[in-house]
Amino acid sequence: MTNETLLRCRQELHTHLTTELLPFWTARTADYVNGGFITHFDQHGRDSGEDEKSLIAQTRSIYTYSSAHRAGYGGETEDQPSLADLARHGVDYLLTRMWDNEHGGFYWMTNRKGEVLNDQKIVYGQSFAIYCLSEYTLATGDLRGVEYAEKVFDLLQKYASDTCYGGYFEMFDRAWTLKGPGAAGGNRKTLDAHMHLMEAFTSLYECTRQPIHRRKLLEVISLLVGRIMHPVYGTGVPQFWADWRVAPQIKFDIIWGWDRFTEDGVKREAEDNTSYGHNAEFAWLLLHALDVLEIPYETYFNKLQKALSHAADHGVDWEFGGVFVEGAHSGHVYDREKEFWQQAEVLIGFLDAYRIFGDEKYWKAYENVHRFVLDKMVNHEVGEWWPLMTRQGVPIWTHMSHSWKINYHTVRSMVQSIRRLDRLIET
Amino acid sequence: MTNETLLRCRQELHTHLTTELLPFWTARTADYVNGGFITHFDQHGRDSGEDEKSLIAQTRSIYTYSSAHRAGYGGETEDQPSLADLARHGVDYLLTRMWDNEHGGFYWMTNRKGEVLNDQKIVYGQSFAIYCLSEYTLATGDLRGVEYAEKVFDLLQKYASDTCYGGYFEMFDRAWTLKGPGAAGGNRKTLDAHMHLMEAFTSLYECTRQPIHRRKLLEVISLLVGRIMHPVYGTGVPQFWADWRVAPQIKFDIIWGWDRFTEDGVKREAEDNTSYGHNAEFAWLLLHALDVLEIPYETYFNKLQKALSHAADHGVDWEFGGVFVEGAHSGHVYDREKEFWQQAEVLIGFLDAYRIFGDEKYWKAYENVHRFVLDKMVNHEVGEWWPLMTRQGVPIWTHMSHSWKINYHTVRSMVQSIRRLDRLIET
Repeated sequence: MTNETLLRCRQELHTHLTTELLPFWTARTADYVNGGFITHFDQHGRDSGEDEKSLIAQTRSIYTYSSAHRAGYGGETEDQPSLADLARHGVDYLLTRMWDNEHGGFYWMTNRKGEVLNDQKIVYGQSFAIYCLSEYTLATGDLRGVEYAEKVFDLLQKYASDTCYGGYFEMFDRAWTLKGPGAAGGNRKTLDAHMHLMEAFTSLYECTRQPIHRRKLLEVISLLVGRIMHPVYGTGVPQFWADWRVAPQIKFDIIWGWDRFTEDGVKREAEDNTSYGHNAEFAWLLLHALDVLEIPYETYFNKLQKALSHAADHGVDWEFGGVFVEGAHSGHVYDREKEFWQQAEVLIGFLDAYRIFGDEKYWKAYENVHRFVLDKMVNHEVGEWWPLMTRQGVPIWTHMSHSWKINYHTVRSMVQSIRRLDRLIET
Repeated sequence: MTNETLLRCRQELHTHLTTELLPFWTARTADYVNGGFITHFDQHGRDSGEDEKSLIAQTRSIYTYSSAHRAGYGGETEDQPSLADLARHGVDYLLTRMWDNEHGGFYWMTNRKGEVLNDQKIVYGQSFAIYCLSEYTLATGDLRGVEYAEKVFDLLQKYASDTCYGGYFEMFDRAWTLKGPGAAGGNRKTLDAHMHLMEAFTSLYECTRQPIHRRKLLEVISLLVGRIMHPVYGTGVPQFWADWRVAPQIKFDIIWGWDRFTEDGVKREAEDNTSYGHNAEFAWLLLHALDVLEIPYETYFNKLQKALSHAADHGVDWEFGGVFVEGAHSGHVYDREKEFWQQAEVLIGFLDAYRIFGDEKYWKAYENVHRFVLDKMVNHEVGEWWPLMTRQGVPIWTHMSHSWKINYHTVRSMVQSIRRLDRLIET
């Protein structure tokens, strides 16, 4: 594609980020009464009132404001706080209201006032605490961030790691006792948690440069590449038993997304299911980890190529635009709806794929999703993205934010895509 | 066998323990000048002068005095300290001279004065620290023991565990950075360290009853049973690569025994070698762990039977008495000499085998080794055991103690065998 096309795409993203997305959040998210962030907004951007502050939404918000600040966006204005101030506001709440002083680790859920609603220790949430607190210290220099990120890291090593089969167990009660089997999740391991641990340990290592953080990052990369990605297709397998045999994909008691299951809590295709968005996200997060580790991409080329080409070859909707939800490892699409986070992640993934493989198909895939996002997924009236649309691009769910949506995917996608476009643009 | 035979055996062990073994140590081991223990004695029981205090020898001594005290042996006399006092004397040294206040964990070696000679962190040694400090608290109630045992446990979870393949890496520098491959040992895992971690976690869990200590004990048991013991023969495989492929048995830079290797540091039968003593020790330590965990033996019967029958069927020397050093997994003996620690461990293992399987062959094997020990292995002139003898029972090495011998195997064997004989004796 031409330099002009690159510049136009970059400008569209930049405009969306700086005039729609970030202003949506800076205008309404800070809770100056109780601390932390309000994270529930309806399609008009009005507070929808749910009385909860989730670990995911608070930590993802901290990540968003820290990383956007670090990338140079959003200084203070007359009527809005700077992004660094917002991040600090969130960290204050996280450390004083969500940290368990007795057993360590962050609670899963408080109400708006900061009273604990769910005191369980969920690795998925703890991984976002490490991620956001490391990014916060990198962005602001406030050492409270990395201090608590390291505390959580140490707790995960002690309580979550499985010293028999490797990897991490994911579901614990308040005192870090492993939960039972089945929907309690104590005997399963997931792509999701391990991928986000890679993401978290990357930022932790970037922040501390400690050998132990590097080693654990390398170990979780080996796990993802060697056990979690499909041995033939290189695509993500969602769930495993503790010993890494593939497990049918079930819905857990504690969930972190509004994922769709059948009524008995099982996926329709429970043992042959992979997410295009996860695969692209895995690939670009791995590339970023390798950059931070200063390890050449070559060793992982084959795996990266498989994960990214699966998304580009099978996940893109050439008729209506955007990327599908999920399908078979061999490529066949099961779910043709359009989720916000999958669009966000494939934008970054396709730009990385174009950069490292130089194959025009990735640019075309990028451009397709880029158009779908800016033309359909963004609710331009208020500035955030619709959470779920029909294949054709009609909103199914209409909230702008809740505990599992928030702004981590959308803002990160803009920040990271702009950075990648800037590297492609000839100056 | 008859009750009379049992009683006679029990009496012989008790006499050896209380009039020879324990007096040997209480008379000469405490270093009242520099703290800790003198642990090097020649065949006459004279201090042989080596200027070193090893982590292994200090911790094993603390275990010995703590466990014998707990079992009811050795109160204070006019001219000897009580065993509890001796243990405390050792703990004082361990905590003040061998603990690394900066990076945590115990140093590998000091000189007699307490100056650090080798600051590396070796998991084998750390496991004995957990073992002896837990036993010390159980024996004396002094909570310093379990406090430091837990610190070491936490450090191992953070630094030593391999979160990719499970198990523990074993060789670290002072700051807990994993050492390199080859003789440095950083890319290997051993039966030895994992078996002693099972032993250590058993005592730690007995002391704390914490769920996390229970879980990590169960995980290391799964590893031993599922990966480390031979899948067909149930015998111990000495060394593995990090991913649990069997590795040829090499000599490490940091060693914890006077094991015999060829001149290039490789075993003659580097890939088909198992130790009768290790297999019996594994079996009785597993039985003890199951007792502490309150888990029935049944699940492990097959594995226990394989490990113990291999030692009884192939390891016992029916011509000259005692148990051989090592041989093939299929049974053929490679090394027919007689090591002190293998005799000590099979005594306990054969008594346990006789108890749970009721097979007379185990009693005959016990009686054979019992006679060899009391008639040949014990240096009755001074009270301790010869370290290594010819097949016929002539001493090859003649020291009574050095950094890797000390009294843990001999005293424990007597204490544990007497306990088992007492259970067999009809009252």
